[in-house]
Amino acid sequence: MKLLRYGPEGHEKPGLLDEQGAIRDASSLCADYTPAFFADGGIEKLRGADLARLPVVEGKPRLGSCIAQPGNFVAIGLNYVQHAIETNAPIPAEPIIFNKAPSCLSGPNDPVILPRGSTKCDWEVEIALVIGRRALYVPEETALDYVAGYCVCNDVSEREMQLEHGGQWVKGKMFPTFGPLGPWLVTPDEIDDVQNLGLWLELNGKRIQDSSTSDMIFRLATIVSYVSRHVLLQPGDVITTGTPPGVGLGMKPERFLKPGDVMELGVQGLGTQKQTVLAFEDSALA
Amino acid sequence: MKLLRYGPEGHEKPGLLDEQGAIRDASSLCADYTPAFFADGGIEKLRGADLARLPVVEGKPRLGSCIAQPGNFVAIGLNYVQHAIETNAPIPAEPIIFNKAPSCLSGPNDPVILPRGSTKCDWEVEIALVIGRRALYVPEETALDYVAGYCVCNDVSEREMQLEHGGQWVKGKMFPTFGPLGPWLVTPDEIDDVQNLGLWLELNGKRIQDSSTSDMIFRLATIVSYVSRHVLLQPGDVITTGTPPGVGLGMKPERFLKPGDVMELGVQGLGTQKQTVLAFEDSALA
Repeated sequence: MKLLRYGPEGHEKPGLLDEQGAIRDASSLCADYTPAFFADGGIEKLRGADLARLPVVEGKPRLGSCIAQPGNFVAIGLNYVQHAIETNAPIPAEPIIFNKAPSCLSGPNDPVILPRGSTKCDWEVEIALVIGRRALYVPEETALDYVAGYCVCNDVSEREMQLEHGGQWVKGKMFPTFGPLGPWLVTPDEIDDVQNLGLWLELNGKRIQDSSTSDMIFRLATIVSYVSRHVLLQPGDVITTGTPPGVGLGMKPERFLKPGDVMELGVQGLGTQKQTVLAFEDSALA
Repeated sequence: MKLLRYGPEGHEKPGLLDEQGAIRDASSLCADYTPAFFADGGIEKLRGADLARLPVVEGKPRLGSCIAQPGNFVAIGLNYVQHAIETNAPIPAEPIIFNKAPSCLSGPNDPVILPRGSTKCDWEVEIALVIGRRALYVPEETALDYVAGYCVCNDVSEREMQLEHGGQWVKGKMFPTFGPLGPWLVTPDEIDDVQNLGLWLELNGKRIQDSSTSDMIFRLATIVSYVSRHVLLQPGDVITTGTPPGVGLGMKPERFLKPGDVMELGVQGLGTQKQTVLAFEDSALA
């Protein structure tokens, strides 16, 4: 299944993508794709439904983040060798964990808004996963059984805020619109090998990230298991799993986002995102 | 007002502490102290209620964390000069932000559970605040208008996980029970000067942290304003604001938590907490 949320920001409804690529309204089956939905077996209930009987949504509605109000939005840093090298960081011996903020989630095609005065805002195409079951100390062998689905994430990062103001990375990771998630959450049964998916990002039409999840240092099962030794993962929690090489911080000279830039990104089988960059003053946040 | 939550874990009810120190059942006025409660003006609604008409809760029920399911649990590091010095860290030029996990919240008197194999688990008495209104780019001058209330927090920290496994601090900050919060949330009108409150922690009856919020490097208004430049703060979000000197990492020799240790801690006017340390294998999590 492909779960999505559609409609105006803050008023999204749950939907499903059918095999013809049409959105089906799932609001008769559940209220929203919240932590309670995942905790209460919502995925299994959707599976039992007859998709063909759900109303087709006409037109091209805005898509929201593919899940709502996660209790935690965890991220993994430097999980591709060439990305660690391009940013002059040592190759990690253990997964690096940091946090994004649930309030930074946005729709896959919503604008990405630059913080005031931002000069070093950067892109990071990633594959993210959503937790389906409570996970603490889960072994690698069964870790992926705790995953409800996978989706595309752009781990938008302001490098000056992240790296040049002391302390921890999160300062540059949590701004609103820094977490486009979707277009849809794809359940594991629709993916042959999650560790062998292409992922890519184009800036203004030019492909600058182009890699595969087979290039990860720490595989998805390792990540879920490792994170679950440090934090109780709960249904609906998101983990985004690191970006391959090709970010602006790694370019010579460095290249960061300006208003009007367009990012398109995708992961094989999980759909694509497209974001236009806005100055804060020109955005709905101002 | 003093807002608290009482009852078995996962089934807490909202309550208020009256002037005689009795718990009044507030469940006729609201469902729980969730983000929706704060967003929907719940504090103002409670203020209009006649406390004397609410039922007194008999006995000594367990207390839960004083608020429920925050959307974000932000923390500030190294915010007292002598604590930075004792941990051999530079005195920060700007607030250091990191995250705890909403799933690490626990009641003020619940056991603190050591992760498997933990040898460097440490205590940190702090004053925390809960956000009452959406805050993005709020100036220092009005920043405290966005605070719904204040409470005690023990920012429990596993130093080996935090500092010796690469990357960011959060690995040692997010384990379940690492965020005892309460006993109650005290509204700002009950506090004369939040920047002049004693705070202390005793380990097995010996006072080892003893300071005042007047010793902070970055004051509470500065913290709220600064954090709001990096993340959209939402009603119900928690910010815990750093610990004074006296942690185990700063002792010579270092001293960390063992099963059976008892921590008592408090902030002047905000009540006290008391936690017994448990090995993971002996805990309800095992």
